[in-house]
Amino acid sequence: MPVLTFDQLADVCAEIMEAAGAPKQQAHVVGIHLAQSNLYGVDSHGVQNLPVYIRLIREGRINPRSEWSVVRESPSTALIDASWGIGQVSAEAAMKLAIEKGAATGIGAVGLRNSNHVGRLGHYTELAAQAGMIGVAYVNTDPTVAPWGGTKPRLGTNPVSYAMPVPGGHPILVDFASSVVAEGKVRAALARGERIPEGWIVDKDGRPSTDPADLYAPPSPSNPLSIVGALLPAGGYKGYGLAIVSDVLGGALTGWRCSVDVESGNGALFQAIDIESFSSRSEYDNRVRKLIADIKSSPTAPGFKEVLVPGEPEFRTAEQRKPGIPIPETTWSQIRTVGESLNVRDLPAA
Amino acid sequence: MPVLTFDQLADVCAEIMEAAGAPKQQAHVVGIHLAQSNLYGVDSHGVQNLPVYIRLIREGRINPRSEWSVVRESPSTALIDASWGIGQVSAEAAMKLAIEKGAATGIGAVGLRNSNHVGRLGHYTELAAQAGMIGVAYVNTDPTVAPWGGTKPRLGTNPVSYAMPVPGGHPILVDFASSVVAEGKVRAALARGERIPEGWIVDKDGRPSTDPADLYAPPSPSNPLSIVGALLPAGGYKGYGLAIVSDVLGGALTGWRCSVDVESGNGALFQAIDIESFSSRSEYDNRVRKLIADIKSSPTAPGFKEVLVPGEPEFRTAEQRKPGIPIPETTWSQIRTVGESLNVRDLPAA
Repeated sequence: MPVLTFDQLADVCAEIMEAAGAPKQQAHVVGIHLAQSNLYGVDSHGVQNLPVYIRLIREGRINPRSEWSVVRESPSTALIDASWGIGQVSAEAAMKLAIEKGAATGIGAVGLRNSNHVGRLGHYTELAAQAGMIGVAYVNTDPTVAPWGGTKPRLGTNPVSYAMPVPGGHPILVDFASSVVAEGKVRAALARGERIPEGWIVDKDGRPSTDPADLYAPPSPSNPLSIVGALLPAGGYKGYGLAIVSDVLGGALTGWRCSVDVESGNGALFQAIDIESFSSRSEYDNRVRKLIADIKSSPTAPGFKEVLVPGEPEFRTAEQRKPGIPIPETTWSQIRTVGESLNVRDLPAA
Repeated sequence: MPVLTFDQLADVCAEIMEAAGAPKQQAHVVGIHLAQSNLYGVDSHGVQNLPVYIRLIREGRINPRSEWSVVRESPSTALIDASWGIGQVSAEAAMKLAIEKGAATGIGAVGLRNSNHVGRLGHYTELAAQAGMIGVAYVNTDPTVAPWGGTKPRLGTNPVSYAMPVPGGHPILVDFASSVVAEGKVRAALARGERIPEGWIVDKDGRPSTDPADLYAPPSPSNPLSIVGALLPAGGYKGYGLAIVSDVLGGALTGWRCSVDVESGNGALFQAIDIESFSSRSEYDNRVRKLIADIKSSPTAPGFKEVLVPGEPEFRTAEQRKPGIPIPETTWSQIRTVGESLNVRDLPAA
């Protein structure tokens, strides 16, 4: 399997994005975002998305030179219209504006509409934590998830993310889909020829199934995997509730659209909460330090070697992958192909 | 079973709270809160709590005449110290201040510390929705829930709530504990002599159990039900992540304490988001109206007669209970006893 460093991956992606028409700085934002997802072990949001982005640019759905703009603003809030530019660029701008407003007024909240795929949500909440603030993000996406008590897709996997600064360490980083699993996990099980646990999906007739193929229509050349079943919400009515929250905050509050009407892209709401507007930083730090120690002092459940706090698995993977990030052969070959089609031929040996 | 109207229940509770030393207006807030929880069918947060509150007043843990105060403030945020007064009074004040600040700056966020039991969280987020805003609440509470991968209580059932206005109807009201179930449901199964589903609890040795008695130490006269096992988080690492979010926002951000150190009471963070700071009210209304219609148009899963949106079960129960709210005989008799001990003897015939 090809192995590349973070810098190599980021540079390759940036170069290809630039060749596809993105300004240098915006191409760089995408490169960093994708490579960091792989570094953290979140490969689903990593460089495997680059060929998709290039296709969307060619189809005119991503305009790599389009610029976002603030279309509504109050002292603590703003609405950004991304004008179908590069998702990561407008989403970073939205969180950075939320941080700026949060620093000024105690809390900032910025909505995002007409945005392409923003990628890994934890990236944005971590930006807030790096600025010493608590970051929050709600995102909606295209429909794949049944409502609680229903059987047909009416909601997206609509994730939420929170990042909370930890003194002298990585933030606590919560980042999850409101469905039991992301659709990619069902697809991966299908590719491996494995069954999936009960409770992940229902088939086209609304029946629970452990066969990953039941999520999809019989594949055709034009549409290799189209969804006819539905994913189920995490924790029944709880994940269902969160999916609606992300849909309303990301899709309705922003004047964009809710999951059922989403063809591609994301609506989002980002928040940045200023800690010292509420209590002293040392009070907060002491409580968070103790919370983590207390959690880690719990005896472990069978199958667990230790108790981890959210985000710890990702930061550990990043440490392990510092020397090099393994990229599946098929992904790397797709990137090579798309690079060559744009006359980017000097890819690093991997 | 005794049946009382909402007004009767609220008045009885208010009268008893006043007899126990609460100012008239504050006693009224408690009465309304408890009666409304029963009206909505959330009996765990209803009038059965009144005898507990009176005991806490007698033990000096609730000071019914204590007044909350704003101890830190910024344009969009505030921190309220509840000074161990009546929880519902300070929590209502916190959400009302968040609404005021949200109306002025686009989003308001108010933390609450040193607060007694705030009761049903949806009550506060619904206040924001009634003001035409989106309400958000995070609360932490005493430890009963194991971290993901652990077996001992390190977190509370730490709930979240969201209320989102719906044109011409009740808000979408999301309100749930981050654990699989509230502890009260295990206690109820124990009382009925029933087993509980797998995945709700682990016993004192960290083993999964379907026997509700395994959550508790053998009962003694002084401590009828003390927890030695643990509840489990909803959706594994997802509910675990949310529990930490509510703990950090309610307990650390407010300079109070996290779940492990909570003996009683709650820490909380309330938010109110002004819709028109993001988009026009008609855009929002149209999207939310369509979202609800789309969700309800899903075919139903086996065992469901229709697909409901969050909050709908509660609002329907309220409609059914308009003529009268059934109160368990034991609860009513406890209220009667505690009333008599305070010379409140003119309880309505039930």
